[in-house]
Amino acid sequence: MNRVSIKEFVENDKVVTSLLITQMNRGLTNTGAPYVSFTLQDKTGNIEAKLWDAREELLEDIEPGKVVLVNGEVLKYRNAFQFRIFTISKLDSAETNPSDYVASSHLTPEFMKSSILATVASLKDPIIKGICQKIIVDYEDKVYSYPAAARNHHDFVGGLATHMIAMINLADSLCLLYPSLNRDLLIAGVLLHDLGKVNELSGPILTEYTLEGKLLGHISLMQAKVNEVAISMNYQDTEQVTLMRHLILSHHGSYEFGSPVLPLFQEAEILNYIDNIDARMNMLTKALEPVEEGQFTARIFPLENRSFYKPAYLKK
Amino acid sequence: MNRVSIKEFVENDKVVTSLLITQMNRGLTNTGAPYVSFTLQDKTGNIEAKLWDAREELLEDIEPGKVVLVNGEVLKYRNAFQFRIFTISKLDSAETNPSDYVASSHLTPEFMKSSILATVASLKDPIIKGICQKIIVDYEDKVYSYPAAARNHHDFVGGLATHMIAMINLADSLCLLYPSLNRDLLIAGVLLHDLGKVNELSGPILTEYTLEGKLLGHISLMQAKVNEVAISMNYQDTEQVTLMRHLILSHHGSYEFGSPVLPLFQEAEILNYIDNIDARMNMLTKALEPVEEGQFTARIFPLENRSFYKPAYLKK
Amino acid sequence: MNRVSIKEFVENDKVVTSLLITQMNRGLTNTGAPYVSFTLQDKTGNIEAKLWDAREELLEDIEPGKVVLVNGEVLKYRNAFQFRIFTISKLDSAETNPSDYVASSHLTPEFMKSSILATVASLKDPIIKGICQKIIVDYEDKVYSYPAAARNHHDFVGGLATHMIAMINLADSLCLLYPSLNRDLLIAGVLLHDLGKVNELSGPILTEYTLEGKLLGHISLMQAKVNEVAISMNYQDTEQVTLMRHLILSHHGSYEFGSPVLPLFQEAEILNYIDNIDARMNMLTKALEPVEEGQFTARIFPLENRSFYKPAYLKK
Amino acid sequence: MNRVSIKEFVENDKVVTSLLITQMNRGLTNTGAPYVSFTLQDKTGNIEAKLWDAREELLEDIEPGKVVLVNGEVLKYRNAFQFRIFTISKLDSAETNPSDYVASSHLTPEFMKSSILATVASLKDPIIKGICQKIIVDYEDKVYSYPAAARNHHDFVGGLATHMIAMINLADSLCLLYPSLNRDLLIAGVLLHDLGKVNELSGPILTEYTLEGKLLGHISLMQAKVNEVAISMNYQDTEQVTLMRHLILSHHGSYEFGSPVLPLFQEAEILNYIDNIDARMNMLTKALEPVEEGQFTARIFPLENRSFYKPAYLKK
Amino acid sequence: MNRVSIKEFVENDKVVTSLLITQMNRGLTNTGAPYVSFTLQDKTGNIEAKLWDAREELLEDIEPGKVVLVNGEVLKYRNAFQFRIFTISKLDSAETNPSDYVASSHLTPEFMKSSILATVASLKDPIIKGICQKIIVDYEDKVYSYPAAARNHHDFVGGLATHMIAMINLADSLCLLYPSLNRDLLIAGVLLHDLGKVNELSGPILTEYTLEGKLLGHISLMQAKVNEVAISMNYQDTEQVTLMRHLILSHHGSYEFGSPVLPLFQEAEILNYIDNIDARMNMLTKALEPVEEGQFTARIFPLENRSFYKPAYLKK
Amino acid sequence: MNRVSIKEFVENDKVVTSLLITQMNRGLTNTGAPYVSFTLQDKTGNIEAKLWDAREELLEDIEPGKVVLVNGEVLKYRNAFQFRIFTISKLDSAETNPSDYVASSHLTPEFMKSSILATVASLKDPIIKGICQKIIVDYEDKVYSYPAAARNHHDFVGGLATHMIAMINLADSLCLLYPSLNRDLLIAGVLLHDLGKVNELSGPILTEYTLEGKLLGHISLMQAKVNEVAISMNYQDTEQVTLMRHLILSHHGSYEFGSPVLPLFQEAEILNYIDNIDARMNMLTKALEPVEEGQFTARIFPLENRSFYKPAYLKK
Repeated sequence: MNRVSIKEFVENDKVVTSLLITQMNRGLTNTGAPYVSFTLQDKTGNIEAKLWDAREELLEDIEPGKVVLVNGEVLKYRNAFQFRIFTISKLDSAETNPSDYVASSHLTPEFMKSSILATVASLKDPIIKGICQKIIVDYEDKVYSYPAAARNHHDFVGGLATHMIAMINLADSLCLLYPSLNRDLLIAGVLLHDLGKVNELSGPILTEYTLEGKLLGHISLMQAKVNEVAISMNYQDTEQVTLMRHLILSHHGSYEFGSPVLPLFQEAEILNYIDNIDARMNMLTKALEPVEEGQFTARIFPLENRSFYKPAYLKK
Repeated sequence: MNRVSIKEFVENDKVVTSLLITQMNRGLTNTGAPYVSFTLQDKTGNIEAKLWDAREELLEDIEPGKVVLVNGEVLKYRNAFQFRIFTISKLDSAETNPSDYVASSHLTPEFMKSSILATVASLKDPIIKGICQKIIVDYEDKVYSYPAAARNHHDFVGGLATHMIAMINLADSLCLLYPSLNRDLLIAGVLLHDLGKVNELSGPILTEYTLEGKLLGHISLMQAKVNEVAISMNYQDTEQVTLMRHLILSHHGSYEFGSPVLPLFQEAEILNYIDNIDARMNMLTKALEPVEEGQFTARIFPLENRSFYKPAYLKK
Repeated sequence: MNRVSIKEFVENDKVVTSLLITQMNRGLTNTGAPYVSFTLQDKTGNIEAKLWDAREELLEDIEPGKVVLVNGEVLKYRNAFQFRIFTISKLDSAETNPSDYVASSHLTPEFMKSSILATVASLKDPIIKGICQKIIVDYEDKVYSYPAAARNHHDFVGGLATHMIAMINLADSLCLLYPSLNRDLLIAGVLLHDLGKVNELSGPILTEYTLEGKLLGHISLMQAKVNEVAISMNYQDTEQVTLMRHLILSHHGSYEFGSPVLPLFQEAEILNYIDNIDARMNMLTKALEPVEEGQFTARIFPLENRSFYKPAYLKK
Repeated sequence: MNRVSIKEFVENDKVVTSLLITQMNRGLTNTGAPYVSFTLQDKTGNIEAKLWDAREELLEDIEPGKVVLVNGEVLKYRNAFQFRIFTISKLDSAETNPSDYVASSHLTPEFMKSSILATVASLKDPIIKGICQKIIVDYEDKVYSYPAAARNHHDFVGGLATHMIAMINLADSLCLLYPSLNRDLLIAGVLLHDLGKVNELSGPILTEYTLEGKLLGHISLMQAKVNEVAISMNYQDTEQVTLMRHLILSHHGSYEFGSPVLPLFQEAEILNYIDNIDARMNMLTKALEPVEEGQFTARIFPLENRSFYKPAYLKK
Repeated sequence: MNRVSIKEFVENDKVVTSLLITQMNRGLTNTGAPYVSFTLQDKTGNIEAKLWDAREELLEDIEPGKVVLVNGEVLKYRNAFQFRIFTISKLDSAETNPSDYVASSHLTPEFMKSSILATVASLKDPIIKGICQKIIVDYEDKVYSYPAAARNHHDFVGGLATHMIAMINLADSLCLLYPSLNRDLLIAGVLLHDLGKVNELSGPILTEYTLEGKLLGHISLMQAKVNEVAISMNYQDTEQVTLMRHLILSHHGSYEFGSPVLPLFQEAEILNYIDNIDARMNMLTKALEPVEEGQFTARIFPLENRSFYKPAYLKK
Repeated sequence: MNRVSIKEFVENDKVVTSLLITQMNRGLTNTGAPYVSFTLQDKTGNIEAKLWDAREELLEDIEPGKVVLVNGEVLKYRNAFQFRIFTISKLDSAETNPSDYVASSHLTPEFMKSSILATVASLKDPIIKGICQKIIVDYEDKVYSYPAAARNHHDFVGGLATHMIAMINLADSLCLLYPSLNRDLLIAGVLLHDLGKVNELSGPILTEYTLEGKLLGHISLMQAKVNEVAISMNYQDTEQVTLMRHLILSHHGSYEFGSPVLPLFQEAEILNYIDNIDARMNMLTKALEPVEEGQFTARIFPLENRSFYKPAYLKK
């Protein structure tokens, strides 16, 4: 199907295109008439939309997670576009290509897979290498499609592996600058620290927390997974396994961020720092991209609710 | 051997008896002469001791964890006894009975074992019951000899099981008063919440933290153990297992006390309260026991560093 | 009058019934027309309601605290009922029975009174018993009708006494399990700790804080009351009175929750725990009751803003 | 008796004088010989002292709170004097004048009494005036002899009244500058806020906390006292009494400093500020007095553990 | 122009007057029609206003900061006036007097200037006096027109100087009561502590933070300014300059309020207290002024979000 | 002079060598005899030392900061060496080479200088480059000899420049990995952030805080310096200067660590992270160096008081 993407929308255009519903809320106007507010999305962005006079018979099979064909008009208020829907109808999933509707990594799955496997192959200690390899192979499909978070940083298809690869590069730079760091331990921490997200989150699209995610969390899930894999390989009584489990448990760096133990060896301490740097650079880049020079971003909650400035002097 | 126990010591007595060394520190007097400070212990208490003129040749094989024969004098300063050692010599372990030198539960191991196994047998859900049973049987010897902590509450031989049994009674009382509580879940939480101490701590005597204990902690160790046992019984995909893992993870009740998730169902919330009540009652009873009516205890660090009062009016 | 209760409301029903107004707010629609939003309530629940075209002449004597006759229609949006009012008129208080419009304890006032007086009678120390008796007799009518809080836990007619009785049962269970606890002191704490609510709150219906409640608080009010009653009975110089005042002052357990002193004897420490257990069980039971198995409650602010899970496995 | 005061001590002097014992601790030298460390005091200061070879028969009736005759030598180490005692003996209390041994206010008791009574007389509202008058008259002897604290600020005979008078002056200055302040309320707060110290503390010399002081605290004691006096004068239902009780309860300004309610009217807010200013100025003046220009004081714990600087430029 | 001021508005009046726009937001009604919400202001107050059917051609040159002629009707809902605009048009700035539209100090600029300059003249130390003088003369126009804050306390034309003068009076009172205070240092702190607001804020009307204000803050700006002026007068190596810089840096009193160092001499400690007293009295007076006796103010965010009570007893 | 260095000391050796006194405390033995405790140091380490029978006539000119000739004996207790001094005498400074007695960077001053100047030369923006150059040239001698802190991290001669160079390398790595980072701003932050230490600290040896350091701190000192230099170059009104001042002010990352503003552009955010990584790696390396595999370090206060583990598995 020949789509108009959200990035191409122009004020006052009449548009017919296909979009993914990510949120949907029914409301009543002050005169008691029903309406529906949607958030619609494709891989280029998202837009708020309203359907007025929303009789229920028009809404059959229209729900979050569905791709729909909409016919409407682009309006602009308070510096943002809004979409007024005239008609909406469900599209057969055979007619649509999921990758048109979700943001995804700038890296291809193939590149991510070969990078991560090459990194595993570069590990020297057989126990560390063996366990990392087994877990990554077990999870294979999901490692390259899951996001790193339901929202905030790396919240796109392939975000988890993108985050891992950036941290591998950071870790390698630090191992060069600080030779006392043990690369095997630091890289093992990078590879495993967030892999529990594969169980914590529901999937790459319309990502939510699973019951296990809510009640146990990715930190505890992956720590138990390492124990489980270590037993299956008869490595359970090695120091390496204890160190790998500690890297996972401590990587949030403090109790209030959900680490039950604080980092207690130098690679664990550094893992927390490089995780933070990459997550923060990802959020900053995303937030600063649409901002003009000389302006501030909106407040960014996970960056302690600060607004960040984009310097103006380079523009001149 | 015919021992004089520490509780029987009287000021200015000359005493010959056998005691366990729990701490030992070398020092130099201001005139440069070597001396040694000991903490000596039997099941009735402990005492600070000094050996002046401590030539190294007299100290061969004298180290923490050994039972020694001491000959010395009981002195009293600042309201506490101190022991001045004239001679010290190692005793053959064949000559000594370990239980003479460490405090232990008022409950017998046999009673504790039958109580706990009867409680396991009373569980209704087969998955919850099966997992609890397997773990308790696996750890059997240790469940009834380990303390519940290296210091603070229930820090004696059998302390862990003593704590479990008191909490079972508390849990049963609460299930009667609040019928909406699920007894299986609450009892499972009681049975498992602290069992990771068996890996976290070195043993019932001269208890220290193991490397696993320091780097992983009893909460994470037991959570992974439940996962491991669940897999071995093919229960890993049941809600019950997720709930049991959550009970363990959340039982400290807040991030700053090392729980990576907060209690998220009612039995998890209540588990934290009854764990606290029993631990606090144990510490209060121990601290108040030697205090006279109308006086305050010394400051108790794990009770927020408070001193507690023992009312005087009942004495009259 | 033959009422339709809120629990009986069905979507799209036209209903004529009587309800209590608990909140009332005037607004202007976007076209400048006046409307009124109400919260209406009976003992089975409450519902949001709207009166469109709300001319002031129709609203005479219509205000919070009044029972009104409404004629309207039940609508459903976002999984909740809303009531659209066609006509509204005041009812003569002679025609209405207040107990139809407010939630109340599952215990009868008679049962609560006899339970509490029997507990007072069971106290052994004459000073503790005498003071508790005098205060409870002084406040008699109010002890059995007041809620334990304006909102949150036990916020219904008779909630205060319901909370006291549950805590008496908890205290008795703990005294059995921990014989070192002094039952007189613990029960006195249970009976008196929240009685200051009788001065802090305005009454059992449409409960608000009084000026004394805001400026002094129930903790300080009751502490001063015990002093006042002790003087009237010539008990002011006894240790028992100081201990009772301390139980009241310290029962919130920490400075940030408004206790000016921390618990300093064991019954004071335990009082804080059983107060918490009963208040939390009350809030959890209320929040979980309408939730389906396998779902989470809404966030509960006084439970640290957590959502609680209702396990699904029992349903199967 | 003709005394040498501590301020007159010179290094290496042999001195015979009378001093008050405020602390006394027994110890053992490394060679096992008994010694005693004392803190000795007169109204000009205090000094650490040691009695070597301290046989118990020499120490009969020698205890904290007693005035003793000492014969010894003044030594200097680490920039501080130390007193080596050769002989020590008890003095008959008939021979000693208590005011020689304790620091006291620079104001006479007569001046303090007339100032405070004149301030009471200047109050306009009869209820506020009546209650302040009755309490101050009830406590009369103690108001002018008690310290304002066991340590920290105004910790000398008459310190409480000295603090009250300074705060009266501060309050009057503020009432001039901010005419919206109600002088009656602010002055009532000044007069009553710390009077509970009369029950919280044991007395003007060797001041300790009473049981009531530890379990209830001066804030709660005085609040209950105002309630008690108000009832005796039949003022208990007036707003003035509620406001006076609130002034006392809130004057520490925050929960963590033991106020169960925060200041909720402007005079309560200001009371906390002027209490702080006068207490801090008292501690600063005392700490800076012995310090040379260009130097810092020792760390002052109640001033957030800061060291304060005494500027040098004025000296030049 | 003959204006009707906001304080003169009466419900249901039709009014034609001139007002300053301080905020302006475009919206869409539920039927998709554009409207505009304004906040309009004159020196007597401000009012919310709505323009329905807000076609863009009517809004040319209508923007925040402009004075406009409005024709409309005064409505009242929820105890507040709202203004419904029929027509709106821009006024030529030649026709309007800015001082009609903004709140300003009760003190005249002439009085403020002579007071502050007289205070500078009263300083004794030539270095302190010289630096204060130079900075105040440099900033002259702005010192007497800037507010002390964009919102909260002293947020009106001349607010900064009004705050300085009140603090000078407070400082002089304290220097009388505590002769150990060095008046030069305390007054220098009063004069300089907030002068950085002249760079931090955009101006006296529609006050916003400048880029320097956001990235550096008034504390750091003024501290650097004192250094700069000291160099220009060759005073940079004097202790007085270091003390003046410290007074500015520490005047917020704690790290979390943006002071990079804590007060370390007594005048710095006291400066923080008198700054707080004057700011808090200003906010309290403003908040209490419209409140009736016996009522509470709305919550005041910078006063720890408390509501304050206005006593009723004086009214009777 | 032919020295024996501290690293060469062997138990029970009699040694004559020269050492620097860094601390010196007089004491009294229990028998009243004077002694002196020293900390002595050379570039290979430090050692505690005692001089018994320390008559004052032997101590003339012996004070911290002096190099002395000592004759004594090496003793060992509690796993640490102690030095018993028989005789001590001052050495003429002409006879001693200061660099023998203090630890210093593994980088030569020449290398550090050329690295840092090359980095300055690589900056592109003329304003940023000009200001960095001027400040570094102004401070030249001190930049390459000062430590980065009086204790904790990089506390040795040349520590400040060593820290700068490691951070330059880190910054360059990050600029490669995150191309959105502006290298000029990040490098300017690295060069300037800690240069205020040159005024905050007394010098490279026996480092203490200056009065300016205590009252103003290195953050505020350097921020004002940048303002001062910018004025001298007529750059004061450029955005670059504001950004450079912000980098310095915010580099501690949070209020409680003394930053008066939080990082508000991405290079400021990252500066805080790389400062932390390099400081923490320096402290970890220093603490882990003497620890055996399989052991923990002592608690490290600035690393949140944690003990760090040195893995054992690599040793095998």
